[in-house]
Amino acid sequence: MDFKFLRELLIPAETKIVLIIMDGLGGLPLEPGGKTELETARTPNLDALAAQATLGLTVPLAPGITVESGPGHLGIFGYDPMQYRIGRGVLEAVGIEFDLRPNDVAARGNFCALDANGLVSDRRAGRIPTDASKGLAKLLTMQIEDVEFFVEVVKEHRLAVILRGADLGAELSGSDPLKNGKPPQTVRARDAASEKTARVANQFIARARAALAGKMPANMILLRGFDCYPNLPPLPEIFGLRAAAIALHPTYRGIAKLVGMHVLPVQGNTFADEFATLEKNWADYDFFYLHIKDTDLAGEDGDFARKVRIIEQVDALLPRVLALQPDVIIVSGDHSTPAKLKAHSWHPVPTLLYAADARAEGIAEYGERACARGGLGVLPAKDVMPLALGHAHRLEKFSA
Amino acid sequence: MDFKFLRELLIPAETKIVLIIMDGLGGLPLEPGGKTELETARTPNLDALAAQATLGLTVPLAPGITVESGPGHLGIFGYDPMQYRIGRGVLEAVGIEFDLRPNDVAARGNFCALDANGLVSDRRAGRIPTDASKGLAKLLTMQIEDVEFFVEVVKEHRLAVILRGADLGAELSGSDPLKNGKPPQTVRARDAASEKTARVANQFIARARAALAGKMPANMILLRGFDCYPNLPPLPEIFGLRAAAIALHPTYRGIAKLVGMHVLPVQGNTFADEFATLEKNWADYDFFYLHIKDTDLAGEDGDFARKVRIIEQVDALLPRVLALQPDVIIVSGDHSTPAKLKAHSWHPVPTLLYAADARAEGIAEYGERACARGGLGVLPAKDVMPLALGHAHRLEKFSA
Repeated sequence: MDFKFLRELLIPAETKIVLIIMDGLGGLPLEPGGKTELETARTPNLDALAAQATLGLTVPLAPGITVESGPGHLGIFGYDPMQYRIGRGVLEAVGIEFDLRPNDVAARGNFCALDANGLVSDRRAGRIPTDASKGLAKLLTMQIEDVEFFVEVVKEHRLAVILRGADLGAELSGSDPLKNGKPPQTVRARDAASEKTARVANQFIARARAALAGKMPANMILLRGFDCYPNLPPLPEIFGLRAAAIALHPTYRGIAKLVGMHVLPVQGNTFADEFATLEKNWADYDFFYLHIKDTDLAGEDGDFARKVRIIEQVDALLPRVLALQPDVIIVSGDHSTPAKLKAHSWHPVPTLLYAADARAEGIAEYGERACARGGLGVLPAKDVMPLALGHAHRLEKFSA
Repeated sequence: MDFKFLRELLIPAETKIVLIIMDGLGGLPLEPGGKTELETARTPNLDALAAQATLGLTVPLAPGITVESGPGHLGIFGYDPMQYRIGRGVLEAVGIEFDLRPNDVAARGNFCALDANGLVSDRRAGRIPTDASKGLAKLLTMQIEDVEFFVEVVKEHRLAVILRGADLGAELSGSDPLKNGKPPQTVRARDAASEKTARVANQFIARARAALAGKMPANMILLRGFDCYPNLPPLPEIFGLRAAAIALHPTYRGIAKLVGMHVLPVQGNTFADEFATLEKNWADYDFFYLHIKDTDLAGEDGDFARKVRIIEQVDALLPRVLALQPDVIIVSGDHSTPAKLKAHSWHPVPTLLYAADARAEGIAEYGERACARGGLGVLPAKDVMPLALGHAHRLEKFSA
């Protein structure tokens, strides 16, 4: 969708849209002929809503392509993930709630071990404990020229490294050789605007090596995935919505903030607390994104039964959303994470769109195969937001 | 579809295609769990044809977007309605069968009322009766520099204003303030080529104001939607078809003419007369577009039962088409107009494609939910014409 085209059709409305994303929702049967996690789950509330909804399968980016959470969420938020990107470094930074600023450059970092010949002997520094990692990170806070370096521990050896200064381009190759037994690489600028960044990054790496000498299991740092603040067109402007995000996991709060949503504080750390946050803020926004992380974690762990249980817990909370009488409810995922595969996958995501004026198929089941029979068909995830706006009567008729 | 690509694949053939468009065909149930207009209608002939056809749902422009008849028809005629546009003024002009020429500029006009302060007090001049409107329009036929002004009444206060002269660009803002209580705006050129048009349009408006002084309820004219003749690539060339249009309503004859179809005269004003026109001209064309307006009018009126009856009347006439043994029959709509909404809507349109070599799903029902299960899936309306050509054996195999 051309955002400019869409923006010209926006009309003011009082309608409210709720987008419930169960991360990695799509699944697979463990055995041929079996049921997926979602099909196995007892979901009376979702099934009843499905009967009044139109169903489909969303493709996060393109057929056959498996996505990370970043592009998966951009798609479901209406952005073409091929065109709009959030770099790995930026995702790591927002994922720890680092207050990234528009001119910052961020990289994914690893503490690693170098052998006596200067070759990488362990890219993950023995998965050094987070506390030890934090101690080492303190040694690396520094300034080179006018550029401040922030080294923040994500978990164990994983770091977010943020560069803050003037005139920093982000078109850079990484220093991480991506396998053991090779030396760290020199960071190289891919355009003239990034030459300063390359220069200070290489100086930073040299000084880090000196500071970490003898600090095994980690005596070096590797950087990759340099990127700048993405400057995405703000979702509230594109779609004319006062948009709020409800998520327990920092990465998703971060992505929501990058697209311009207002990230609501959640009191507590349960799904029920997320739904309570929705209720509490109901009057103040037109659009709510509510994120459930644990479906994805269970899928990654290969824990089919746990993923089923989490879906059932979400189903049990659905009546609290229905009681608010949203005009449009979408239930979907950002990608599939079948427990069978213990990983994200390319499979399209079961998607339910409820609205008073949805053309319901009367399929009283929310599941992968039920959605394959639905009237939305198989559609790009980025089409979901315009469909939500249409069903919310927020778009005027296009004439010419 | 890239027209140049398609044109290189065209092969001569004797096959015939009939495209039956029931305007605003797609609908909604009045009550949750109920049937749509098309599902309610008793349509034994369409149902039997559906069993031998492939079914799908067409998206006129993009998911969630509601379209007017102009873009809706461009889509079903194979043109991307995002790329090809027919301006409002041009649609009004062709809708009254004004003989618009390639260098003309057309605008939508309104008779309106100005108060003593020169502010618009009624943009529709009290919906002045058509006859009175025609009397006033006569006062406004004039020439400024070399430009002739034609002021034609569409209905009540609605006018088509056509400018005919040399070097007239059409990139212009309108004079209509679009709400009461504001003064008429000066027409402004958006490019250098339109400066002359802006100059003569503003002079026309000033002279119109003088000519209409004291002629309440209409003492002024407002202009908007300036556009020139669209110069669409002709459908007969793109698709290699001798194409004829059968429509009772002038707007659709106009759109058909703009895409280069031969518009057939219809003797009489009933659906049966339209089908008789098809029979009479059967030998002379490869492609027939047959348009039924009344489904849309019933939908706009919120008259579910009347829309059902009209669909049943069309169904009863279908055997006359079958008797001609067309190679391909498409039944569809240009958009949805659910009686429930009393308006055009964004919902995809039930579409049936019959051909001897269609891969029939054996679904013996023509309706929204039946089409949602069909083998065409959910597809852009602009893909229907290439599908028709394929099924008509009018495209050769593409190698490289």
